[in-house]
Parts: sequence; structure tokens; C-alpha cells
Amino acid sequence: MGIFGFILTDRLIPNIKEYTLRKGICGKDLGKRGTDLADKPVPEALGIVSGAVFIVCLIFCLVGYATSHPSKLLDVNSALLSILFMLFLGFTDDVLDWPWRYKLILPTIASLPLLCCYNGSTSIVVPIPCRALLIQSQEMTILGKFVSWFIEIDVASNGSLVDVGLFYFLYMGMLAVFCTNAINIYAGINGLEAGQSYVIGCAILLHNFIEIKAQSLSQENHLFSAMIMISFVAVTLGLLKHNWYPANVFVGDTFCYFAGMTFAVVGILGHFSKTLLLFFIPQIMNFLWSVPQLFKIVPCPRHRLPGFNPSTGLMEPSTFECKSNEYIWLKTLNRLDHKTERIPNMTVINMALSIVGPMSERNLCSLLLGLQLICCGFGFFMRYYIAGFFFDS
Amino acid sequence: MGIFGFILTDRLIPNIKEYTLRKGICGKDLGKRGTDLADKPVPEALGIVSGAVFIVCLIFCLVGYATSHPSKLLDVNSALLSILFMLFLGFTDDVLDWPWRYKLILPTIASLPLLCCYNGSTSIVVPIPCRALLIQSQEMTILGKFVSWFIEIDVASNGSLVDVGLFYFLYMGMLAVFCTNAINIYAGINGLEAGQSYVIGCAILLHNFIEIKAQSLSQENHLFSAMIMISFVAVTLGLLKHNWYPANVFVGDTFCYFAGMTFAVVGILGHFSKTLLLFFIPQIMNFLWSVPQLFKIVPCPRHRLPGFNPSTGLMEPSTFECKSNEYIWLKTLNRLDHKTERIPNMTVINMALSIVGPMSERNLCSLLLGLQLICCGFGFFMRYYIAGFFFDS
Repeated sequence: MGIFGFILTDRLIPNIKEYTLRKGICGKDLGKRGTDLADKPVPEALGIVSGAVFIVCLIFCLVGYATSHPSKLLDVNSALLSILFMLFLGFTDDVLDWPWRYKLILPTIASLPLLCCYNGSTSIVVPIPCRALLIQSQEMTILGKFVSWFIEIDVASNGSLVDVGLFYFLYMGMLAVFCTNAINIYAGINGLEAGQSYVIGCAILLHNFIEIKAQSLSQENHLFSAMIMISFVAVTLGLLKHNWYPANVFVGDTFCYFAGMTFAVVGILGHFSKTLLLFFIPQIMNFLWSVPQLFKIVPCPRHRLPGFNPSTGLMEPSTFECKSNEYIWLKTLNRLDHKTERIPNMTVINMALSIVGPMSERNLCSLLLGLQLICCGFGFFMRYYIAGFFFDS
Repeated sequence: MGIFGFILTDRLIPNIKEYTLRKGICGKDLGKRGTDLADKPVPEALGIVSGAVFIVCLIFCLVGYATSHPSKLLDVNSALLSILFMLFLGFTDDVLDWPWRYKLILPTIASLPLLCCYNGSTSIVVPIPCRALLIQSQEMTILGKFVSWFIEIDVASNGSLVDVGLFYFLYMGMLAVFCTNAINIYAGINGLEAGQSYVIGCAILLHNFIEIKAQSLSQENHLFSAMIMISFVAVTLGLLKHNWYPANVFVGDTFCYFAGMTFAVVGILGHFSKTLLLFFIPQIMNFLWSVPQLFKIVPCPRHRLPGFNPSTGLMEPSTFECKSNEYIWLKTLNRLDHKTERIPNMTVINMALSIVGPMSERNLCSLLLGLQLICCGFGFFMRYYIAGFFFDS
């Protein structure tokens, strides 16, 4: 299915991009302003090809599953449903430009089928050092009693298990909304959206293979996740080939949304959502660093992409204007001249450019993907080494 | 959910149509050529609103189902998945204009999840007069022996039951493809697509209520179907309000596809696909009558809509040119002057205009919906009266 998915995506993109171009679903490459390529329209929303091929691959996997693992059929169905909903939402967003509120409400609704079909445990394992805070010598502490108003503490297990019940569903719903939007706001230069998804996808796949090899208790769940991830990684690679610098096509919100939901789905149904978040460190950093602009605490221009300097051919941080002195703390953080009134937009991309200095779009993308790779490596280190100190095997 | 669906669709359409207009997803009303309205762009593909609201309604129904009928969860999921896939395909078709081959392949794939999750019987009941052809005095006849090479005849039941196995799945897949395209080709005048879907939806709902009231064996299935149909009828009514003559919005392929798949889904999962086909008589007539043009046996112009005559303000049958004498049989069927070389396009809409004479677009739509209503009534007569002679109660 993976090979089929890659070849089909790779072949279909040059074909389908003519359709999107013809209908005016295209954009100017803002990272090439001032060059010959600046006015060439680049077809947009080609994530629809990888998304549709991915769904078709998964439907064929479903057919195989129906005969071999009938008990997992519901999981595959609800996974497909949530991913397809986001693919649909993403494409309509590329075509119609939804306002922000829809982008937050609809992923929440899209994650509902997933949550309804979730039939795993809602208990979480308490890290060893925290257990003594809840239970001491078989008796609940004051903190433990307070906490037990909201959630159920398993006294028999000496506080090592806590059933968080509905809060777990809330967490999963928020994870889905976070994942769908996290990739979308860490985007804007050629190859970054598809590239980061490819790296994360490979990390998840590696994690799945390690767990399957180790014959852990959740082997079945990891097999399920691997099945989805192999198709995903394949179609993403097919897309990346056309989206790599200089991009022939843009991936659009279509890709960002369905890729994010795919990660959320495998994290939730594969029961490794905490490990998943370890692979999302650059996205989490980017989100946290963007919060002041996203919530309009400081001014937020329409685009926050880095700017292209035609005279050097390099990308430079884009800036926003700081109208008063009230953002003085920002300037301190950015280590800028205190008299300047322009501050780099608060994204990891601009931060990287501020730290390393101007560089070409291709190198910038490679640098950010390198960062993603290092963060994933760090995630594995946390999961397989550090976690051993906090959780029982 | 129904009331919520109707109000939300009705309120959102004026809002969303601004988005589609702004992005140029709009069309000219071909039925108003030569009037003041001819050049006014009408927003297209507003079926997306009713479709998205419908999916949201169904997801909320799913949440309710998850707690009350966990065994039916898989059915709801696969139903949603197939409907959503068609909604997605329909919208991309409205935006990108897919070639015909995609429109036949993709609905087939979209129906796969439904077929995988189908866990009902694959046996059909043989009409009483045909049983003697298969089995006589507990022994298979020659025809029976021949038939049993392909399908399994239940000798114990005296030939009243036949297990058609894989052929049943083939039949269901073809039903899905037929339903999704049948509404799309019986379309083109204001209010017809949404109107016919509304009438068929109400007929299905009535059938469901009769079966639920009668406490038949398949009561559960009819409850399931009624749950889907109530939301569907509600959002369709909301859309019809804006699509009725003179149309403020067009429904697009988006609506035709997801409406058709919705009918197929309830027919298959509700186990009343034969009854469903009785409600589709005008669509079947239209399809059969269109076959020569669809398969290019006779010439097929790009549009087959009836033409508007600005001098009378009435619709008249549109025609195609007959280049040789080889279609002489067509002319005979149309009872036209044998010398004429222009023949009305082969759709039920043009046929109605040929028989009744030119009429206004609003009256034409009312006439066709009246025909739909009569056919549904005939369907009920067949199902509840005539069927009694051919099948045991």
C-alpha cells in the first residue's frame, strides 16, 4: 500500500495541479519576491492529492482488516472518519478561507467520532516521585483527598494509577485540535509542512517498530498505528518531492489539517499520546512562542513568514511594528537594540533566522528539519531512558 | 437534531454564499437566459452547507448512540464515512471539475467501508412463483442445479432462500454508485435536486415509521435509518428554501452526491434496498432514457437542460442534432415529424415538456416533484400490497 501510495501521489500531482491552476486555486511564492519566479502562480492545496490517495490506501487496508481483525474495524473506521473530516475542512478552507472560529470548532467536532469509539483505559500512571504526594502508608494525603474530588485515585495500587475519566477525553479532544493547528502555524517556507510531517511520521513508525519488536502489551495498537503511518509517510514523501525548494506546488491547509489529525488519531488509538507530544517539541515551542501574537497581545500582521531579500538572495526575519514601550520585555527577550521599534515575528522560523543569521530558503528548511530530527531523537531519549526513572517498567 | 439542522442550514447559507461568490464558485442560471437575471452570478455548491451540517448532526447522533447502542456504532461510523467521502468528492468536483472516470471510480471506493462493515445476511428471498423453477418436490430442477454453481440454494427452505454471497456485495456497491449519480443526472432546474431528495427522504422516513410501528423484525434497522433520515430531510428542506425558484443558490454536485450516498447507506444498512429502488422510479426512468446519450450512442451536448424562451417566459425542450437517419427509431419514440433533424435531449425533464407542452420553470419543477410523489405512492402500493402476492409474510 505504501509503494502504491507513493507512486500514485507522485504521478497524480502534476496532473491535478493543472486543475487547481485552471480554477485559480494558486498563490504567489512570497519567499521569492523580487526574483523572476515572483509572479509565477504556484498551484495551491495539492495536499488534496496526498490526502485522497491516503484515504484510498486506508480504505483498502480497512478491507484487509475487516477479514483479519474484525475487532479493530471500529478503530479504523473512526480514524478514517476523523482524518477525512479534516481533509474536507482543509480543502474547503483553502478554497473559501474560513474565519478562525470555524477552524477551532470543526476540528473539535471532527474528533468526536474518535472519542466515542475510544474504548481504552482512561487511567494514567502517576510518576514515581509524585505518588508520595497523593498516598502515604496506604492513606490519602490532604492533596490526595483534594484531588480525589475530581478524579479517582486507585488506593490499592498505592497511588500509581489515577483514573482521570472525562478529563482524559477532554485531553484527547484538545490534542486533536492542537495537532491539526500546530503544523499549520509552523509553515510557510517551501518543503517545511511536508518535511516536518515526514520526519514526525518516520519517528512514530520507528517507535511503533520498537514496540512491536519488544512484544509489549500494546503490540496490537502499534501494529494498527504502523499500518496507518506507512501509508502516511509514503504519500507525504510523494508530496514533498513536488513541494521541495523551489516548490512546484503548495500543500495548503488541506495537508496541514489532515496530517495533524492523522498524528492525533494514531497517538490516541495507539495509546502513545505522551510519546507523540515528545516528537512535537518544535511545534509546541512554535505554538507557545506564537501565543502573544495569536491571541493579539502584541500586534499580528497577516503573514508572519520570513522575508526574502532579493539583493542577497537570502531569507531574513520578518518584523512587526511595536507601537509603544509596553512590549519592552519582548525586546529584551529578542536581545534587540532597545531603541528599535520593529521586532521579529514570533515564530520558530524567524527565531532561527535571528540566531543563525540570514540564509537561503532551502538551507533554512534543511535547518528546521534538522531541528525536528534532533527533537525527535531527544524524544526517543526521554521515552526510552529518562522515563525509566519516573515510571515502573 | 432535525430542528437544529434545519435552522443552522437556513441561517448559514446566506452567510456562506458570500464566500463561494467571492471565490468565483458560481454559475449563470441557464434557465433565465434573455432576462434581467441572466447575468447575475448565482453562488454554486451550497450543498456543502447542508452536507456539513448533516455530518455534524450525525456526529452528535453518534455520540448519543455510543452510549445507548454500542453494537450499532460501527454501522453509524461506516455510514458517516461513506457519506463524508461523497461530500468531499462532490465539493472537489464542483471546484475542480473532475473527468468522468473519477466520478465512477471514487464512489465505488467510497462504498467499500460500508460493504466491509455490512454484517447482515447475503441471502435473498425468492418470489413464490419462481421457487418451483429452482426446486420441485425437495429436488433441484435442472435450472436449480445450474444456478447453484454460482450461488447457494437453501434446499431445506424449499428454495425460498438463496444465498447470493459475493453477488450481494456487488449489488450493494452498484446501488451506491447508481444512487450517487442518479440524482446528479436528473437535475438542472431550480429546486429539482433538493426537491426530489426531500420527497424521497420523506417517503423513506414514512416507510421507516410504518416498520417501526409494525414492530417488525428489522425494527432496529429502521430506527437507525430514521435517525439518519430525520437530519437529512431537515437540512434538505433548509437548502430547498434557498434553491426554490427563483434560486438564490445552486446546490452543486456536492449535494447530489452526498444525498445519493445517504439514500444508498440507509437502504443497505437498513436492509430495505429493494423498497428504496421503488422510490427511485423517476431517477431509474431518467437513467435508462439517458443511456443512449450517456454512452454516446447518439450525440450528447454538454448541457441537456431544457431551454428558456424569453419571448414566452416558458421552458421548452432542448434538442440535439441528429446527423443521419440511423436514429430513426428515436424519432418514432418521440412521435416527432420524421423529417425533422432535431430531437429533444433524452431526459425525463425534456420528456415532460414534450408531453405537457412548454411551461414556467416553477411549474415544471412542481410537475416533476408531483411525479416523484406519485411514484413514491406507487412504491408503497407495490411494497405493501403487491409484494404480498410474491413473498410470504
